[in-house]
Amino acid sequence: MQTPTDLQKQLTFIRELDKLKQVMRQNYLLDASRSENSAEHSWHAALAAFILQDCANQPVDICKVGKMLLIHDVVEIQAGDTYIYDPLAEEGQHERELTAAEDLFGLLPQKQKCELMDLWLEFEERQTADARFAKAIDRFMPMLANYESQGLSWQENGVTSQRIHEICSLIEAGSTVLWECAEGMIASALERGYLDA
Amino acid sequence: MQTPTDLQKQLTFIRELDKLKQVMRQNYLLDASRSENSAEHSWHAALAAFILQDCANQPVDICKVGKMLLIHDVVEIQAGDTYIYDPLAEEGQHERELTAAEDLFGLLPQKQKCELMDLWLEFEERQTADARFAKAIDRFMPMLANYESQGLSWQENGVTSQRIHEICSLIEAGSTVLWECAEGMIASALERGYLDA
Repeated sequence: MQTPTDLQKQLTFIRELDKLKQVMRQNYLLDASRSENSAEHSWHAALAAFILQDCANQPVDICKVGKMLLIHDVVEIQAGDTYIYDPLAEEGQHERELTAAEDLFGLLPQKQKCELMDLWLEFEERQTADARFAKAIDRFMPMLANYESQGLSWQENGVTSQRIHEICSLIEAGSTVLWECAEGMIASALERGYLDA
Repeated sequence: MQTPTDLQKQLTFIRELDKLKQVMRQNYLLDASRSENSAEHSWHAALAAFILQDCANQPVDICKVGKMLLIHDVVEIQAGDTYIYDPLAEEGQHERELTAAEDLFGLLPQKQKCELMDLWLEFEERQTADARFAKAIDRFMPMLANYESQGLSWQENGVTSQRIHEICSLIEAGSTVLWECAEGMIASALERGYLDA
């Protein structure tokens, strides 16, 4: 049997990526017509990061941030989506996702596997300005979707404003401007009855 | 009335982007379970460009290519998806899309509007190595999806291998390696009866 070429490995990975389009998230599209999938969320987040780059607290390598957001949810193909407001689902999440990252990025040629693993770990660990801004965008996007869809998924999951503050305050570490904007949405959601205190 | 701030304009644009998740394309997901939408296609294409950058015929600015692919279909929010194998739909397509680009990118602060217009026009005109590679990826992705889904959308639309050669040979201008790979898929699709000559 022949060893697969680099291109064959890359195409296997690209074919596998298609499955992210079938991983469904808890939040809805802005018009609440259906749930969002993780592939289209990743597109929206990467593009939003480019648009909002001046909101980052520190200077960022926006190309790297964009790449991070393109790959940040790929592990869900194997590990599934973990709902950020579900404390039980969090258990073992990192281990499941680490195994998934090894398996999925492991489809690529070694050098690219290492690059994507490093990028994904940097995102997860949030120790750099790039990762903190990427994470801020990743948390800000469903906040926007939940607010625009009148809190539908917040209500379905019994999410309170206190819980949102706990989970989403890490937006602040990447962008105080976006966090202020998020706080405005939370206040308005409470006022409009989209959300319980 | 107050003039909207830059951030307000950016958020309006980002909210508008959500609609691309509801623009459906002719091709199916790889497992043929449903049609693909233009937002998830854009994610898949941008990430594939990063993975396949060494396949470009000339050196490219991969960050720019990625950004191009993130925005290349945004005009469809207003102009709709034009099926590449439909010669009638092509009529007036560029004008419709140009108006859409003016309207949609026009939601942004002026400087960003200009940046995105330039990027989108560069992609459309294919006069640079970056645009040619981005376009090659944009054509290669549905080829892969159509092949993997056993030619379902080719059959539904009466697409022949001759027509694919006409439409997809511009992959070659961006990447001879990917064009060779595409030609292999066309030959195999003919052999397997996914496609008529």
